[in-house]
Amino acid sequence: MKGLFITFEGGEGAGKTSIIEEINEKLLEKGYQTIKTREPGGIKISEKIRDVILDRSHTEMDARTEALLYAAARRQHLAEKVIPKLEQGFIILCDRFIDSSLVYQGYARGLGIEDVYDINRFAIQDCMPDVTFLLDIPPEKGMERIQGNAEREQNRLDLEDLSFHKKVYEGYQLIADRFPERIRRIDAGQPFKQVLEASLKELDAYLR
Amino acid sequence: MKGLFITFEGGEGAGKTSIIEEINEKLLEKGYQTIKTREPGGIKISEKIRDVILDRSHTEMDARTEALLYAAARRQHLAEKVIPKLEQGFIILCDRFIDSSLVYQGYARGLGIEDVYDINRFAIQDCMPDVTFLLDIPPEKGMERIQGNAEREQNRLDLEDLSFHKKVYEGYQLIADRFPERIRRIDAGQPFKQVLEASLKELDAYLR
Repeated sequence: MKGLFITFEGGEGAGKTSIIEEINEKLLEKGYQTIKTREPGGIKISEKIRDVILDRSHTEMDARTEALLYAAARRQHLAEKVIPKLEQGFIILCDRFIDSSLVYQGYARGLGIEDVYDINRFAIQDCMPDVTFLLDIPPEKGMERIQGNAEREQNRLDLEDLSFHKKVYEGYQLIADRFPERIRRIDAGQPFKQVLEASLKELDAYLR
Repeated sequence: MKGLFITFEGGEGAGKTSIIEEINEKLLEKGYQTIKTREPGGIKISEKIRDVILDRSHTEMDARTEALLYAAARRQHLAEKVIPKLEQGFIILCDRFIDSSLVYQGYARGLGIEDVYDINRFAIQDCMPDVTFLLDIPPEKGMERIQGNAEREQNRLDLEDLSFHKKVYEGYQLIADRFPERIRRIDAGQPFKQVLEASLKELDAYLR
């Protein structure tokens, strides 16, 4: 692949959206071609799959069904958008990817990290991210930020209780230990400017 | 599980529908409680997933996305319908199940039998069929039957060419060798009455 595939991970309130925005600006200034994306990424089939997942009338949705649907939507987004753009040499900045499934469904929901990894490996084959920034923030602090952010539209995950967010935090630590080569921990509890600087410094090693 | 989970497999024109119908009649006569089903089995979530798979406008559907969607629909059908009925002691007669994915997508479409088995194991966990009847018929003969059956509404698979159906036949032979304990081969090239007799004879060993 000629491009660079970067994913951003972390619990709620870690600041992924703002960091992606700023990194994208910096890359554009430097003359790189970039794509900011997040699943389902405007891919028609993935959007339809997401509709099935999020339909509030689907109260009988089994956790394994849900994990398979996320993997299916991921596959299609990857095949239709990410891979073609990587082949064209773009830098892809993707908000959440495989690690979110490993942490949220594999660990926090209890399906098992390795089992969820297996179905996602089927989905993505060898197209793992080149690097993943884990915006690392203690769950109490992340929740505080969310609650202080009047502009943020609360999502399903924001409404989970603190014990769930603590599990997510633990899960990300496990995943970072599982993939030390790929995952770069960024202390996201610092002021924003420092988080951005730390991210750009790590990113530098991957730019050509 | 108190019940009995029986699946029926085979290429097009093998006669699965008629055999299931007759076996169901015999079981009801003997006083068993039965459910005839096939995926998506009237399960709302599975129906919606199937709509995504079969939507003719989804020409960009990737083969791996499709395999994950089939596994998701299977999971939900199993969790909502098959498992609860098995727990109540029913005999489930299911037209196609995991082996169809192994053969059609794993082997005939080339995704790999073991890889497709892995995602399906995630979907069904340990709920494999107690016994699977493979209605075994050479592809030429199966196609002949389909073409001679004016009442049959042709489906997508009927329209594939003979080389595809030959791959399906080969795939079923591989699968029968892979699961010798579970899969019972029935010579479906015989006259219907003999196919039924052979099936009922095999079935007898599983009835209580």
